[in-house]
Amino acid sequence: MQTRDIFANISPLDHRYSRDEDDYAEISKYLSEKATIALQAEVELALIKVLAARGLAPQTAPAEVEKAIAELTTAEVYAEEAKTKHNIRALVNCLQKKVSKKCRPFLHFTATSYDIVDTANSLRYQKTARELILPRLKKLHKSWAEIAFREKDRVQIGRTHGQHAVPITFGFTIAEYVARLGERIEEIEAKTDKLVGKFAGAVGAYNASSIFFDDPEAFEKEVLAELGLKAGEHSTQIVQAEPMTDFVHTLVSTFSVLAAFADDMRQLQRSEIAEIGEFFAKDQVGSSTMPHKRNPINYENVKSLWKAFMPQMTTVYLDQLSEHQRDLTNSASSRFIPELITALLSAVSRLTRVSSKMVVDQKNMQKNFEQNKKMIVAEPLYILLAAAGHPDAHEAVRKLTLEAQKTDLSLKELVAQSKELKGYWENFRDLQKEIILKPEKYTGIAAQKTEKIVKNWQKKFAYELQLEV
Amino acid sequence: MQTRDIFANISPLDHRYSRDEDDYAEISKYLSEKATIALQAEVELALIKVLAARGLAPQTAPAEVEKAIAELTTAEVYAEEAKTKHNIRALVNCLQKKVSKKCRPFLHFTATSYDIVDTANSLRYQKTARELILPRLKKLHKSWAEIAFREKDRVQIGRTHGQHAVPITFGFTIAEYVARLGERIEEIEAKTDKLVGKFAGAVGAYNASSIFFDDPEAFEKEVLAELGLKAGEHSTQIVQAEPMTDFVHTLVSTFSVLAAFADDMRQLQRSEIAEIGEFFAKDQVGSSTMPHKRNPINYENVKSLWKAFMPQMTTVYLDQLSEHQRDLTNSASSRFIPELITALLSAVSRLTRVSSKMVVDQKNMQKNFEQNKKMIVAEPLYILLAAAGHPDAHEAVRKLTLEAQKTDLSLKELVAQSKELKGYWENFRDLQKEIILKPEKYTGIAAQKTEKIVKNWQKKFAYELQLEV
Amino acid sequence: MQTRDIFANISPLDHRYSRDEDDYAEISKYLSEKATIALQAEVELALIKVLAARGLAPQTAPAEVEKAIAELTTAEVYAEEAKTKHNIRALVNCLQKKVSKKCRPFLHFTATSYDIVDTANSLRYQKTARELILPRLKKLHKSWAEIAFREKDRVQIGRTHGQHAVPITFGFTIAEYVARLGERIEEIEAKTDKLVGKFAGAVGAYNASSIFFDDPEAFEKEVLAELGLKAGEHSTQIVQAEPMTDFVHTLVSTFSVLAAFADDMRQLQRSEIAEIGEFFAKDQVGSSTMPHKRNPINYENVKSLWKAFMPQMTTVYLDQLSEHQRDLTNSASSRFIPELITALLSAVSRLTRVSSKMVVDQKNMQKNFEQNKKMIVAEPLYILLAAAGHPDAHEAVRKLTLEAQKTDLSLKELVAQSKELKGYWENFRDLQKEIILKPEKYTGIAAQKTEKIVKNWQKKFAYELQLEV
Amino acid sequence: MQTRDIFANISPLDHRYSRDEDDYAEISKYLSEKATIALQAEVELALIKVLAARGLAPQTAPAEVEKAIAELTTAEVYAEEAKTKHNIRALVNCLQKKVSKKCRPFLHFTATSYDIVDTANSLRYQKTARELILPRLKKLHKSWAEIAFREKDRVQIGRTHGQHAVPITFGFTIAEYVARLGERIEEIEAKTDKLVGKFAGAVGAYNASSIFFDDPEAFEKEVLAELGLKAGEHSTQIVQAEPMTDFVHTLVSTFSVLAAFADDMRQLQRSEIAEIGEFFAKDQVGSSTMPHKRNPINYENVKSLWKAFMPQMTTVYLDQLSEHQRDLTNSASSRFIPELITALLSAVSRLTRVSSKMVVDQKNMQKNFEQNKKMIVAEPLYILLAAAGHPDAHEAVRKLTLEAQKTDLSLKELVAQSKELKGYWENFRDLQKEIILKPEKYTGIAAQKTEKIVKNWQKKFAYELQLEV
Repeated sequence: MQTRDIFANISPLDHRYSRDEDDYAEISKYLSEKATIALQAEVELALIKVLAARGLAPQTAPAEVEKAIAELTTAEVYAEEAKTKHNIRALVNCLQKKVSKKCRPFLHFTATSYDIVDTANSLRYQKTARELILPRLKKLHKSWAEIAFREKDRVQIGRTHGQHAVPITFGFTIAEYVARLGERIEEIEAKTDKLVGKFAGAVGAYNASSIFFDDPEAFEKEVLAELGLKAGEHSTQIVQAEPMTDFVHTLVSTFSVLAAFADDMRQLQRSEIAEIGEFFAKDQVGSSTMPHKRNPINYENVKSLWKAFMPQMTTVYLDQLSEHQRDLTNSASSRFIPELITALLSAVSRLTRVSSKMVVDQKNMQKNFEQNKKMIVAEPLYILLAAAGHPDAHEAVRKLTLEAQKTDLSLKELVAQSKELKGYWENFRDLQKEIILKPEKYTGIAAQKTEKIVKNWQKKFAYELQLEV
Repeated sequence: MQTRDIFANISPLDHRYSRDEDDYAEISKYLSEKATIALQAEVELALIKVLAARGLAPQTAPAEVEKAIAELTTAEVYAEEAKTKHNIRALVNCLQKKVSKKCRPFLHFTATSYDIVDTANSLRYQKTARELILPRLKKLHKSWAEIAFREKDRVQIGRTHGQHAVPITFGFTIAEYVARLGERIEEIEAKTDKLVGKFAGAVGAYNASSIFFDDPEAFEKEVLAELGLKAGEHSTQIVQAEPMTDFVHTLVSTFSVLAAFADDMRQLQRSEIAEIGEFFAKDQVGSSTMPHKRNPINYENVKSLWKAFMPQMTTVYLDQLSEHQRDLTNSASSRFIPELITALLSAVSRLTRVSSKMVVDQKNMQKNFEQNKKMIVAEPLYILLAAAGHPDAHEAVRKLTLEAQKTDLSLKELVAQSKELKGYWENFRDLQKEIILKPEKYTGIAAQKTEKIVKNWQKKFAYELQLEV
Repeated sequence: MQTRDIFANISPLDHRYSRDEDDYAEISKYLSEKATIALQAEVELALIKVLAARGLAPQTAPAEVEKAIAELTTAEVYAEEAKTKHNIRALVNCLQKKVSKKCRPFLHFTATSYDIVDTANSLRYQKTARELILPRLKKLHKSWAEIAFREKDRVQIGRTHGQHAVPITFGFTIAEYVARLGERIEEIEAKTDKLVGKFAGAVGAYNASSIFFDDPEAFEKEVLAELGLKAGEHSTQIVQAEPMTDFVHTLVSTFSVLAAFADDMRQLQRSEIAEIGEFFAKDQVGSSTMPHKRNPINYENVKSLWKAFMPQMTTVYLDQLSEHQRDLTNSASSRFIPELITALLSAVSRLTRVSSKMVVDQKNMQKNFEQNKKMIVAEPLYILLAAAGHPDAHEAVRKLTLEAQKTDLSLKELVAQSKELKGYWENFRDLQKEIILKPEKYTGIAAQKTEKIVKNWQKKFAYELQLEV
Repeated sequence: MQTRDIFANISPLDHRYSRDEDDYAEISKYLSEKATIALQAEVELALIKVLAARGLAPQTAPAEVEKAIAELTTAEVYAEEAKTKHNIRALVNCLQKKVSKKCRPFLHFTATSYDIVDTANSLRYQKTARELILPRLKKLHKSWAEIAFREKDRVQIGRTHGQHAVPITFGFTIAEYVARLGERIEEIEAKTDKLVGKFAGAVGAYNASSIFFDDPEAFEKEVLAELGLKAGEHSTQIVQAEPMTDFVHTLVSTFSVLAAFADDMRQLQRSEIAEIGEFFAKDQVGSSTMPHKRNPINYENVKSLWKAFMPQMTTVYLDQLSEHQRDLTNSASSRFIPELITALLSAVSRLTRVSSKMVVDQKNMQKNFEQNKKMIVAEPLYILLAAAGHPDAHEAVRKLTLEAQKTDLSLKELVAQSKELKGYWENFRDLQKEIILKPEKYTGIAAQKTEKIVKNWQKKFAYELQLEV
């Protein structure tokens, strides 16, 4: 076994962002090179099983191969590859050495390397999605749903262009991400299901398998079924690029949703806004020279990882092009998809951790809301005037707000002073007047909508909300 | 009307790639600024209709607004915007001037700009997809299906790494793209259907509409239904970014499939390969100094446009981030999506044109096939030997091929001379021997599979193949 | 002349972002298709001049060609291209028709299309840089230098992670961009100078020209010298990709500096920060429903355009690859570089306009500074303690700040109360004590450095600062 | 020491592409996390040295810190960071524990974390460039120069659009890359020199250092001088982004040149072209099922790595934006630059290896040249006719070539048969006639130019060519 000090590694994913060894071991089970070889061996085993079932390979072959795989080490395969210069041939050679003479010819029988490589990769990403990505995303989703539900009635000023607009609730702010992430999770699920394998030989025309089988497509179907996979409609030496392209797109676009959330939260942590905070460990150092700072480092980290990996989608689009029945220029590049997934998983874990510790600063949230309170109702006032038949309500209110900014008077007071507008006011319904007088009521259906969204996903993803009582 | 010499335009899409004025006019109907304003007006109209139906706006309002829209010019809206510095307010002002006093207040009633802008955009892209992109892609798809079907039995050497591998048929080569493009078309259809509108007000909490309606979500639903749209689960000032992100991804990934096809075809046109050609107009000049050249300019152009527009996906991912209830930094950037679509449509038209004129050079295809004929059967020979129990078939055949390259003997002859291999040969079935002797038989199920794929899509897309008899 | 309603155009650069017709006309002179043809004709003219000077072409030829060019229209060339399907051949044909029989053979003599196309493009971008981009950037630079100088002493809280850190001055904030933009301008200048032309024929080996000239490289040099250009060290059919790649990189990285500035400024305009503002025109509408808002739309627009065009660098990198002596897949894609430049120019104009109207809100800047005043001095206190020999100064101050946050006491008061720290305090120098007592003094050399930077660039770019007295 | 099976790593750079342990150790010395910490410690040491020289820190301090650094382990720093949650504070704490009480306060004195981090990074990339990247690129460059020189006279058909154009020599083909790579090497050198450090404190205004030093900029200069670095004109918490942006751009654009070369070479290895080959190790397996194949896997790998890493430039552009005096969203992302460099180094090593083994197949190069021999001279013929006053030479030759393709006659023979052209022919000079008769002479100055380019770089980079005699 070739070991190495982890701090001698190049990729931050193999040192800095993998310090939790348990977590790393779990990810490594799917995304390391060891996992790659193990999954390829699993595909070779599926083949043997079908050949035995069809009576070509000896009945003992599956058990023999299973045993061989158990004994196989990655280092051994790499040592063999150093000789043959061919990774799959190396794997096959290693396995062949471990099985009986009778079994030997049926290893890799009628297969081309990429029947193994691409099928193993689809298997890998399907497992990774189902066993790692989706469960972890749902855990994060749940923690957001909990915040949204808990905060559904807490009034917050809504912001557009970084400017105070009209009120919402903080729960509604979070409900945006409950909805967006929920929908992304469903999309990842859908595209995971569509990942395909192949067993169609060197150029996809089943040349080799059709020498032995009348129904090479049925044969392919059986091998893939062993792995829980389906075949695409057409393959060349490789599977069609698009299922994988779509799958990575769902991951990248999910990563963007996490980055959007992180950006929102770190902005809400600004000194002047300070509506939320991260729990701050007793010994944690905010800055090496400024001990008083409370940096949104976790949110910054998530945004930063997204910046590092989002552009990888360009690589995936480039890999959709492969000359004729394939060139190999997608081989090295596609080996970096595990990095993208690891970075995504790191961001998910971090956000889950930090979301569970999110603290709302009610005082500041209130203070910010109050800041432009009298301006907030400009919108409902304008609309009520318009509905009441004012011919140029927008302009009238615009002038009123300029006036309100110059004086200490509220919009309501200015309306009362205005001959032109007074008459309209008196015709407003009580509820409508109330909104002008109490801007904190002007939150529309923020609370109900938040509850509706949270319950929708709670039901879909079948989790219980843990709410503080 | 502000007119301009088209050659004074900056974008190649507005001069060089829009010389067919009929085609340009059709695209412009959906993707120009004129179209933008028209679609936004259409959304304002939908709103008025619902307000009238609900008894708020006068019954004559819809007709009034319809008439106002008919009279509206883009230049007029822009002139108004120059004053107000706000595009939607400008539109509303222009419309208000054209309707009765009674109708006026109900224009834009309870709406925020982006209720209009984003809804109009979803409407635009839905229409563009259904009326332009999908029909044109299906036309291209049909032309590929026709080539695939026509060429399903024509033997071609399969290539991996640019090296001769094992045989396929030219139809099978094209069937790859029939399958890939077909599947992309379905994906575009699916994501087009998922584009959403919104009518939820300034920050998405229905603040304004809830002053007037007990059921603001139902009200939103009615307005959008007028346009054939649905609402997303949650919106802020803007619709959720992901439906549009997914939609653009389907376009970009489709563009990549076109580029992949173009790359394959231009490589097949190389002087040394020359298996296909573009029909060459009598007066066409191949090169300004080399009159004999036949350049694959159309395929090169498609690849080049793809290189220009594929990276725009990065912009779309960046636009998934918008601070709080939105910042405006996605406004200018998202205005360039029409360029991407126009470029895609240009590539589709070009490929459709050139595909319909594709000529196969049977002589060269045959010649290339013959070049490594004796090596081609290395694969089936190795597999047959392996299946027959040869302990190291791969290595044996590898040595044989090195031998074959050095001598003038075929693999078959070398097998016959080999004491070791002779015995195996005699046990091969006739059909298996035939493949070794006649490599052109070694095409697996290329022809059947091609036919199956073509028929699958022909049925799905309900078109008739026009085949030369 | 083929004219078109500008609102029928697809690209926002050809409608929305080109409404100032004077400005558009100026940009169009360099970056439109009309400009392309004109520049290509200019290269053909340079060739004729050298041929006449060398005695090959008739002495009257340059005048003839000059006259022909004056009569040439873009539409005419396009009409000819419709026949020949070759753009440069079309140009040459059109010119040939307009000159004498004797002159005709020397048009395009020994040239390949890309001798013309690539040379014309380098000429175009050199002119555009020198006559449009650089002067406009310097104008923007000057306006930033003026703000920096004017505001060099105005205390502002420095921010890291969006958190209050230690004080700077607002001039220093702007000086960052004076330095960064200044340095980018120099880099654009350097890479503009390095753009190269070529006159080396169809594959770059001077095949044709060497039939007629003993010194084809000297001949190339003379032709390019007519245009103020040099040749690269090696060319194929096209010039080496890297000079253009570097040039576009300088533009994209400059665009990022503009976006960084825009981002900073729009954040400073947040309702809660509100340290700067844009001058607000009397009739300007902030939002269609929220008349009181002051949106940082210009800064948002700049960031958005950057998001739209920054990814185009990927296209330029892709275009560095061109098979053998060239494939044509960089042709359409490189035609979009004028869009990037137009977008950059639009951002520059907008920022120049808005920078000249930038208003500082001294009250808010002061208020924000005060907010964490007592925490600000944590840093100098910790350093002074450390320097005075305190064994664990960082930790001591960290605890003190936590204490200060809980109480109403300043750090100074807490120090005074602390037995441990008191002794240190008494040993501080007066100037050092003053900083702890008056945090607004703790701006380091912000003002001097600002002045130094401004003066450095003022001298380099030779402009006068217009400062309000 | 936390060790790990290398095959448990995620990044292919930490397993598959780092199997040569010697090479990996060398790269790791610069680009691993271990290297990061070591370089940061080196910056802390530089600071202590200056403080001692200036008489603030004890004279023994530098030696103490040097010894502390020698004892420091990365694992120790990480363990401390787990407590403090701050990487640089962790480093400082670890060092402080190892030095005398008197020395302790001067560690990190007046510094902010990023004085250390950014300075250490600039130092790292400067060293990496000068000690790894540039020497290795020059080794590759030399190997290309050798091929170019050796092959400078070997006639090869020039290709544009994948079509045979006019002749060059194979040396000239390679000379393109000698020139392009040479110029990139110079650009990397230039941008390496421009990398800057900083010692300007928490927000760049020298707040802390100005408490102690009258000349904080001079102090900064001294610290950086210890490391061979200079300061930028302005810094905030971090150094200006652009020097690093430019540096990475030179790497990415160099990578593109390698990818361009790789693409050209793999295309020349196509079965139908087969002009060059890779040396094929005796035991190497071409394909798991097709033993006869000779795949251009090394060139494919280089292209593929480029596809994986070129898009990272987008990350670097994104990192040019950092709010106010900095946000931390460039922290994680910039940690991945070492991956880009490692991938580039891997591509360089691979190309150097394979270039040294490049074999030209003279027979095929000749055969391809012959294929369109009679068409090749269309260009010189047309130009000679034009120069001789033929009024429509291009068209005349175009027709002639169509004729030549239909018959077995050469262009020369067709000219001889043509009444119209015969007269012109007789007036051609001998040398000119020779070119029409012997197309292999029509290589322009390919050979001389190749020699000139090679000698230019040989002199600049001061290496000896090893040519086979």
